[in-house]
Amino acid sequence: MYGHLSARRLSAHYPQFYARVQGARAWDVDGREFVDMMCSFGPMILGYKHERVEQAAADQRQNGDTQPGPGACMVELAELFTERVDHADWAMFAKNGSDATRLCLSAARATTGRRSVVAGETAYHGWSSWSNRYADGKAGRPDPETFRYIYNDVDSVRAAVEQAGQENVAAVFVSPFRHDAGHDQELVDAGFARGVRALCDEIGAALVMDEVRAGFRLHHGSSWEPLGVQPDLSAWSKAIANGYPLAAALGSNRFRAGIEQVFATGSFWYQAVPMAAAVATIHALRDEDAVARMRAAGTRLREGIARQAAEHDCAVNQSGPVQIPNLSFAGDTEYQRAMTFCGEAAAHGAIVHPRHNWFLSSAHTDADIDRVLEATDAAFRAVRASFGPD
Amino acid sequence: MYGHLSARRLSAHYPQFYARVQGARAWDVDGREFVDMMCSFGPMILGYKHERVEQAAADQRQNGDTQPGPGACMVELAELFTERVDHADWAMFAKNGSDATRLCLSAARATTGRRSVVAGETAYHGWSSWSNRYADGKAGRPDPETFRYIYNDVDSVRAAVEQAGQENVAAVFVSPFRHDAGHDQELVDAGFARGVRALCDEIGAALVMDEVRAGFRLHHGSSWEPLGVQPDLSAWSKAIANGYPLAAALGSNRFRAGIEQVFATGSFWYQAVPMAAAVATIHALRDEDAVARMRAAGTRLREGIARQAAEHDCAVNQSGPVQIPNLSFAGDTEYQRAMTFCGEAAAHGAIVHPRHNWFLSSAHTDADIDRVLEATDAAFRAVRASFGPD
Repeated sequence: MYGHLSARRLSAHYPQFYARVQGARAWDVDGREFVDMMCSFGPMILGYKHERVEQAAADQRQNGDTQPGPGACMVELAELFTERVDHADWAMFAKNGSDATRLCLSAARATTGRRSVVAGETAYHGWSSWSNRYADGKAGRPDPETFRYIYNDVDSVRAAVEQAGQENVAAVFVSPFRHDAGHDQELVDAGFARGVRALCDEIGAALVMDEVRAGFRLHHGSSWEPLGVQPDLSAWSKAIANGYPLAAALGSNRFRAGIEQVFATGSFWYQAVPMAAAVATIHALRDEDAVARMRAAGTRLREGIARQAAEHDCAVNQSGPVQIPNLSFAGDTEYQRAMTFCGEAAAHGAIVHPRHNWFLSSAHTDADIDRVLEATDAAFRAVRASFGPD
Repeated sequence: MYGHLSARRLSAHYPQFYARVQGARAWDVDGREFVDMMCSFGPMILGYKHERVEQAAADQRQNGDTQPGPGACMVELAELFTERVDHADWAMFAKNGSDATRLCLSAARATTGRRSVVAGETAYHGWSSWSNRYADGKAGRPDPETFRYIYNDVDSVRAAVEQAGQENVAAVFVSPFRHDAGHDQELVDAGFARGVRALCDEIGAALVMDEVRAGFRLHHGSSWEPLGVQPDLSAWSKAIANGYPLAAALGSNRFRAGIEQVFATGSFWYQAVPMAAAVATIHALRDEDAVARMRAAGTRLREGIARQAAEHDCAVNQSGPVQIPNLSFAGDTEYQRAMTFCGEAAAHGAIVHPRHNWFLSSAHTDADIDRVLEATDAAFRAVRASFGPD
């Protein structure tokens, strides 16, 4: 077992193989039922087997899925994306979030004729080697064309640009908020968002927003639209088709001629069923006011956990937006408390992760959250029993 | 429109958007019916909507597809792959063919601690920048760690290894036969296969077989098994799930510890429906003797085209295995004859491509092939009318 779904370093209570999912619930192959607070690490946003999405997928499947070319739903989806996301004048579709971030880099490089990238210090932008030094195991290394900054620190972005040489910088990558694995999360500072936008304009680089993790959970458009800050390019995946495999690179007209020079393709990039599912998902998200519902459920969870932590005398930090929460324990440098917590939560029927943020969906009811809070109450008790008071 | 499915540089008769597929037939959005000789560029191998595959997919879908972890079918599929493919001791699953080739490179680098790659001169191993200089448009460049050889020329492989420095070579990539786009195809020479295997053993590099294009169309296992030559690692995608999005990297035990060091993952890599479809596909391929059926249908097509070319006095070259055929016209350096041919074939109800090899499936009946031959007869007539006798 490999990748982000490997449970082998987690508690023995933590499930690995699944038999069935429905709504906000999942059942493992041993027949145990869980409230899923990981939402398959993001893809599930409206609940598993959401009727409108499944109907659209089934209707398309009856005609065709992988075909000798795209279906008409590809045009419909591109039009919907460019209507919903303010900065987008075009859309290109792929399978992995890593495809989408790499396509944004390709568009930036092809347009600017430059190669360097500036990205957050421990930010994850997919498993591609430009951002992931562990892609080649012991033969891996940081990409010499990637330069790093500290999130929410415009001066550090400027320093990374200078290190690269500003005439070499093709793209500055940002995420909607800081959600690096193994770190407390950090909401974006509006001054940082405006500052990095101004810097990109000054040096002629593309501002690329990686929406793979957070897209459509914070806003029914690009995540910095409420701040009035538009990226040039953005990468989307995970939740855009409620679990069907799809990714999208979106861009403004300035990058259209550049992306047309790029050769990139995949055997399943034109699959029609995920595109039909995405059209239904994006409509359902707004029609069902999904962001507000995730925020309400996330607030109930955050307040409940804060109350329990105080009752059990555990010093914790809850960080990031309530829709994409993160929980850490004070002094827990080796994640021992978090591991105990998540193992016990799993033993009591809730899937949460010790090192990765969690995800809310619009299918999480008050009853689901209360069920999770029963599990976390037991989990706090176990942490307190194993590690004593702080 | 982008990538390998873009029809914008082809004849106006060539279809771009599809409404429906069934068996070996496809209908475009204008209601025209075609025999599909591209098989969605490979993924369709048993026919669209193959009953056994669709039933397996539907059964799995009823339980779950993208879930918080893999389903039991992942274990079943890994066991089936390692049973069917002689060199494979383990399997890792992803979405794109490019993912699978890149994972093989990762496994080779992580195991050997070396970084250089040796690959065929115009070979396509996916859109990743290690093998595709057009990934970044005008800012693109050949990867400085990739060295090139000429297919079927062991001396040129040795020369590329020397250029890289043999102590730096992590992997030598091969394809089952030469199927570079824009070239006549070339079957593998058994001496080349054995020579490159011996050279890899001598220098301690991995021999990586890229089965993405040809896998399971030539043999119910790795494509060089009939020659008695085993690679160390192999990359699979396209046809392995009859159109469902899936890729696989397979490897021998020597590379197990290496691949375990690699960090690589994707949001949809654990999707259960494509894995269930792959299990059904791999069983159906052997149970229905698919390779023999594709060979028979491909032979009928090749013989028919040869007859027509002679009748119309057109000098053509048909190359590669009959299951993955390629047609080129003598002196057709700008592909004008091939473009006319494919446009007319489309106008008469058959989808074939001017610059890319075609694919047979086990669903192509004699009647389908005869229907294609009616279209190609008209196409040869049009070529002759436009370009005169050779």
